[in-house]
Amino acid sequence: MANIKLVVEYDGTGYSGFQRQSARPTIQGELEAALGRLLREQVTITAAGRTDAGVHALGQVVNFPTTRNLPAERVPRAVNRVLPREIVVAAAQEVGDDFHARRLAKSRRYQYTILNRDRPSALVGRFAHRVGGRLDVAAMRQAAAELVGEHDFAAFEAAGSPTASTVRQLTTLRVGRLGDLVIVVLEADRFLYQMARIMVTALLAAGRGEMEPAQMRRLRESRDRGRIGPPAPPHGLCLVRVTY
Amino acid sequence: MANIKLVVEYDGTGYSGFQRQSARPTIQGELEAALGRLLREQVTITAAGRTDAGVHALGQVVNFPTTRNLPAERVPRAVNRVLPREIVVAAAQEVGDDFHARRLAKSRRYQYTILNRDRPSALVGRFAHRVGGRLDVAAMRQAAAELVGEHDFAAFEAAGSPTASTVRQLTTLRVGRLGDLVIVVLEADRFLYQMARIMVTALLAAGRGEMEPAQMRRLRESRDRGRIGPPAPPHGLCLVRVTY
Repeated sequence: MANIKLVVEYDGTGYSGFQRQSARPTIQGELEAALGRLLREQVTITAAGRTDAGVHALGQVVNFPTTRNLPAERVPRAVNRVLPREIVVAAAQEVGDDFHARRLAKSRRYQYTILNRDRPSALVGRFAHRVGGRLDVAAMRQAAAELVGEHDFAAFEAAGSPTASTVRQLTTLRVGRLGDLVIVVLEADRFLYQMARIMVTALLAAGRGEMEPAQMRRLRESRDRGRIGPPAPPHGLCLVRVTY
Repeated sequence: MANIKLVVEYDGTGYSGFQRQSARPTIQGELEAALGRLLREQVTITAAGRTDAGVHALGQVVNFPTTRNLPAERVPRAVNRVLPREIVVAAAQEVGDDFHARRLAKSRRYQYTILNRDRPSALVGRFAHRVGGRLDVAAMRQAAAELVGEHDFAAFEAAGSPTASTVRQLTTLRVGRLGDLVIVVLEADRFLYQMARIMVTALLAAGRGEMEPAQMRRLRESRDRGRIGPPAPPHGLCLVRVTY
């Protein structure tokens, strides 16, 4: 029995999220089908992060056990031939039996891309959430500073999520501008359900001048999900790296 | 009667090319339907370049006559609300009655993007043709120099195209590298059918070392379409600018 770890990229636009569903196309479903065809056995994968419908990845990590002897380094080329173009296995390696892509992940890094201009973009539009008007990136950074650290992030969790603890360690929350693009980088040990996208909603409120940056702290301390608008749309979000 | 000029961007992936077809989705079909809804009259557009299925655009130019009085500057926002996300009107202006997007175009500029690495990319894959092995960009540039100027480009025209003259003025043919991306920029007064993609096929042969750069001249002078392989795939090509 070998345990194989894969790094996976995907364009999540046409998929109903990572997690397998019987009737709809999912990243897990496509990966398991392609690996199953290649290895001629049923494959069940475990992922570091179960991304929502429409979310992309450049560094999703999965692992799966196999009884086959195919050298891991041959997997990417062979499986990429079978996978749809929107899903790519970037790397593969054999790992110890105890490796578990979700449980052993020390941190996840996401990037949220905002196209900050009035006019949409046909080419970038599928990977960036468009926001008109000029965002105040300095204000977004000030607001972001109120969130970094170990805190109770209940205010940034999707309502009705069944989580034992809402305390998380947010190690990075950076905001940068590259021309028309405003990029938010978020890294934490684990993320609450929709936490990254709800944080982006709050940062956008600061960037539009609808919220004083200093209010972000009170918002966090309120632990009240009802105070922030709906999560920013999924297509701006990309899982870029998982660290073990 | 007003004559309106539009600059249009599109991701051509899901479309059967620019030109309207009754049963399949096309860029022209979507644009005419959206403009027709907005203006409440039948609209017929003329385009600078009728791009093939799968080809993208950042600077396609079209024009159409209308009996309506809507100020041109309001068209982009209004029509973008109706268009699918892959098609965006970037700019609109009222032009003189004699403006004709195709006949008056002085030159068209295309960009062809090559992802030069072994591993595919899930995010860039829809806009770049992947070529494994290391391409020799210096050799591609040398070969390109044999094509610039006013020449008979019959060797680079799709077989069976009914064209009166195959002489064209190729003003620009540049090859550059940006990390894993190799970008070819082509500009000419007009392009023969599939000329840009067939030129890329020949440049790739030079970049792979399958053809001496100096042979490009003999290839051009042969006027023999049979000497080059099939056109490079459409998804690497993008119409970036039309000059009047």
